[in-house]
Amino acid sequence: MPELRQDPATKQWVIIARERAKRPHDFIKLAGTPPLPEYKEDCPFCPGNESRTPPETLAYRKGGPPNGPGWWVRVVDNKFSALVPEGSISRREEDGLFRKMDGVGRHEVIIESPKHNQCIALMDTRQVEEILLAYRERYLALREDPRFKLIIIFKNHGRGAGTSLEHPHSQLVATPIVPLTIRHRFEKAASHFDDNGTCVYCDIIQEGLRVPTRLVQETDRFVTFHPFASRAPFETWILPKVHQSSFGWISMADAKEFAWVLQTTLLKLHKALNNPDFNYIIHTAPTKDEHEEYFHWHLQILPRLVTPAGFELGTGIFINTALPEETAAFMRNLPA
Amino acid sequence: MPELRQDPATKQWVIIARERAKRPHDFIKLAGTPPLPEYKEDCPFCPGNESRTPPETLAYRKGGPPNGPGWWVRVVDNKFSALVPEGSISRREEDGLFRKMDGVGRHEVIIESPKHNQCIALMDTRQVEEILLAYRERYLALREDPRFKLIIIFKNHGRGAGTSLEHPHSQLVATPIVPLTIRHRFEKAASHFDDNGTCVYCDIIQEGLRVPTRLVQETDRFVTFHPFASRAPFETWILPKVHQSSFGWISMADAKEFAWVLQTTLLKLHKALNNPDFNYIIHTAPTKDEHEEYFHWHLQILPRLVTPAGFELGTGIFINTALPEETAAFMRNLPA
Repeated sequence: MPELRQDPATKQWVIIARERAKRPHDFIKLAGTPPLPEYKEDCPFCPGNESRTPPETLAYRKGGPPNGPGWWVRVVDNKFSALVPEGSISRREEDGLFRKMDGVGRHEVIIESPKHNQCIALMDTRQVEEILLAYRERYLALREDPRFKLIIIFKNHGRGAGTSLEHPHSQLVATPIVPLTIRHRFEKAASHFDDNGTCVYCDIIQEGLRVPTRLVQETDRFVTFHPFASRAPFETWILPKVHQSSFGWISMADAKEFAWVLQTTLLKLHKALNNPDFNYIIHTAPTKDEHEEYFHWHLQILPRLVTPAGFELGTGIFINTALPEETAAFMRNLPA
Repeated sequence: MPELRQDPATKQWVIIARERAKRPHDFIKLAGTPPLPEYKEDCPFCPGNESRTPPETLAYRKGGPPNGPGWWVRVVDNKFSALVPEGSISRREEDGLFRKMDGVGRHEVIIESPKHNQCIALMDTRQVEEILLAYRERYLALREDPRFKLIIIFKNHGRGAGTSLEHPHSQLVATPIVPLTIRHRFEKAASHFDDNGTCVYCDIIQEGLRVPTRLVQETDRFVTFHPFASRAPFETWILPKVHQSSFGWISMADAKEFAWVLQTTLLKLHKALNNPDFNYIIHTAPTKDEHEEYFHWHLQILPRLVTPAGFELGTGIFINTALPEETAAFMRNLPA
């Protein structure tokens, strides 16, 4: 029979629909992705086309002037920014009932490679380290602006995950508010701390290592697992073992290992499911709460293998047709 | 510049990305939908195939035995139910940290027409009335089961909205918990009532009629508009003007008018955007709160014209590339 499971961190329920449960291999993407060229003349993110993006806010290159070729990671403002740096963060009333404010913030694109046809799963691990360092560097720069309350880093891979540009890139958005969803997540974590004196994510890690049915990988500093209340088949979380609220404070050594873990995980998904569309999101503390005892940064990978429908949109409860214990075992047992 | 807007009912923010704002006609679906046959031999919802679904829980027919042809609306349990009637609603602990319970509930399919190729937008209005009466009848039957805390009725139209069966149908799910998202929605509405002594949805209606920039249609008993903080282009809400917490208590006269309003609205969307994929959801009070002064049932239509990506999944903030004032004006000015 189907089962309702509650995420201990957010208290959100999911339905694990065992009746319609599929086997892990039922989620393999059938249509292959046509191979991409290494360079595409009309791609604004390909080297040589630097003038077609806004000026860079960061680039790793051997030398030479900014906004020219020679970089291996490049960060620019999103040309179609959802939020922009200028404006006021004061709220305005409209017709008494409605509240709005300027769309102040920052919306950046991290171009992950000069090569059009790369993806993190298949890159050299050193390149992944560089991407993560760029994340960290931009995080630390933007947190200095007191208008920015949350800095969220994410990646959309594939059309089904909402991307429109195929050149490998991730995005960073700094928001002038703490989103309600994040506020709720925080409140639940704080309440767990108040009740137990422990970080709920630390507890999840401990429990996940003690009973490793949903564990995919453990390294010195990180654990990778399919969460108990997975919202979607193959939902994957990567957490640092040591308590740390903010991704911004990741050490160089941790970032190095994190790069390897992230890449290994994405490579496994890439191989196992035939390059599925996915989003990943780095959940980190709001900038004012970077040293809280109850929050713990982590990366969530959400493969887009099924389409959320009216029930999910209406209730926030996801129906997952795969058992996390089964998908985790499937991933554990993949040949390296 | 982009704008952040807050939904006064849920307090969720959205980004109205004016920079990348598109004109209403940019959302017209390009690929046409191939026409469907009126009858499909292998469709479990077509007449004559009644034995291929679970037995009916309700059917409107002129006579003849149950589970045979002759019906015009038919309700059956979902063959692949996300929740099932048997089981206990007590919660169980797993490894101390995790909580789960049986997937108890009800998951029904409302087959909206014997004809395979119908859709609400193009049906006879009398048929839409019958569908709404079936919704109401099943709502009233299921609310008698004290294990069911919320009864949610929704429709997925088109593949992009998560449907797998093309025969016109909607769904009803009775859940053994009040979903957290609904609980939050309720808390915000209660807090608005505590502050102002008014139902926030009544206030939205009043304000929407006073400054009708986002109004699409007003009838004697209903208003249709694009909400101030629309999460997606052409998001549409239909609300009864008179305060009523639960859809279950809709009168016959109201249901008749609601059928006409719903159909007109879907027909306009169908014509304007070339049969877009969409979900609709009837938001109604949990069964224990059917007479609250602060909640107000309503139907939300969410066209699936854009794909939510990592930012939306990570923050709950939707980026809307259309201005609700513009899309509402576009809908108002469509020829009837």
